[in-house]
Amino acid sequence: MADELGIFEVMFNCRAMRRIKPDAVPEDLLRRLIEAAHQAPTASNGQNTRWIIVRDAEQKMKLADLNREARRVAYGSPAPATDPAMARRQAASKWHTDNLQEVPVHIIACLEFETPPLDTFARGVGTGGSVWPAVQNLLLAARALGLGAVPTTLPLADRPTAKEVLGLPENVEPYCLIPVGYPMGNFGPVTRRPIDEIVRWDRW
Amino acid sequence: MADELGIFEVMFNCRAMRRIKPDAVPEDLLRRLIEAAHQAPTASNGQNTRWIIVRDAEQKMKLADLNREARRVAYGSPAPATDPAMARRQAASKWHTDNLQEVPVHIIACLEFETPPLDTFARGVGTGGSVWPAVQNLLLAARALGLGAVPTTLPLADRPTAKEVLGLPENVEPYCLIPVGYPMGNFGPVTRRPIDEIVRWDRW
Repeated sequence: MADELGIFEVMFNCRAMRRIKPDAVPEDLLRRLIEAAHQAPTASNGQNTRWIIVRDAEQKMKLADLNREARRVAYGSPAPATDPAMARRQAASKWHTDNLQEVPVHIIACLEFETPPLDTFARGVGTGGSVWPAVQNLLLAARALGLGAVPTTLPLADRPTAKEVLGLPENVEPYCLIPVGYPMGNFGPVTRRPIDEIVRWDRW
Repeated sequence: MADELGIFEVMFNCRAMRRIKPDAVPEDLLRRLIEAAHQAPTASNGQNTRWIIVRDAEQKMKLADLNREARRVAYGSPAPATDPAMARRQAASKWHTDNLQEVPVHIIACLEFETPPLDTFARGVGTGGSVWPAVQNLLLAARALGLGAVPTTLPLADRPTAKEVLGLPENVEPYCLIPVGYPMGNFGPVTRRPIDEIVRWDRW
């Protein structure tokens, strides 16, 4: 694709986009997102990521309800933020919580295991390394295609219920839900602390 | 950067590069890798990834020895592969195992926690989602800059010893080691099963 965005241009302007228009997303773009995700590495090249693309209104409402319940349990009713950046973030989170069912597509990233994993294994370091790189590819691809997205784990916090809603067998574990659609806001750079605060040379 | 590679061009040609030349990598490129990694999302925007960039020969030998020991424990002496693709992979793995200390840079991706995490928490779904997207950004940035890389977890399998080698405090956990340098082989596309085998619509 001669006219595609540059890799660093995308990476440095891949803000979490929570406010999404209800407009439908063409199926070929959704397939393109999964293709991009599928290029990421998996442990021992297992290629065991699995993707549920949810557009059904009833399914999305169930997932949005799970998200609302998990947020209530985790955070209750937080006091209004006084810091402007935090207040913006809080408002975007509230929109996301109230309107998740209106986002046109929910993509759920899963891993399929040969046998039903022990809980600690399913949540383990090695397995996370097989799904989260693919999620990042998907987020970058969405940005490059003009789609807004954000990785969320709260809708899956009640794992047995989430698995039941999605019809997942014992040996398939969901890791995150990514609402996808055309963003209401503008893409832009993310803000990060200076890298000298996060890098050490040779040892801690 | 007007002349940077396109996002999809990089993603679809980001093969795991295990055979690496001993040539040093300029420090500004290493910093560029961390900057790219640092753009990835973290849970609740914690920005708690930490990066140890190891160039010291003695440190690299200790990590290479840990990798050799972990591979011996995990795989023993595997029978030679008969499938050509598997045989190539096996040969690359053997090179990687034998020569890890010669790769000019080992980058270790870590997360810093406010308090020392319980083991299950440190290895949990939520925490993996704060470090592996950054690792994927780093791999893509390396590819875009002409550097070879591959994410590995075996050198960190003996976590107490790995943490001791790296001097990591209780509340900093290592997730993967990425050997980085100029590749001996050529970049190229990865091979993946068709996406219709990994996608379901609305439910499993």
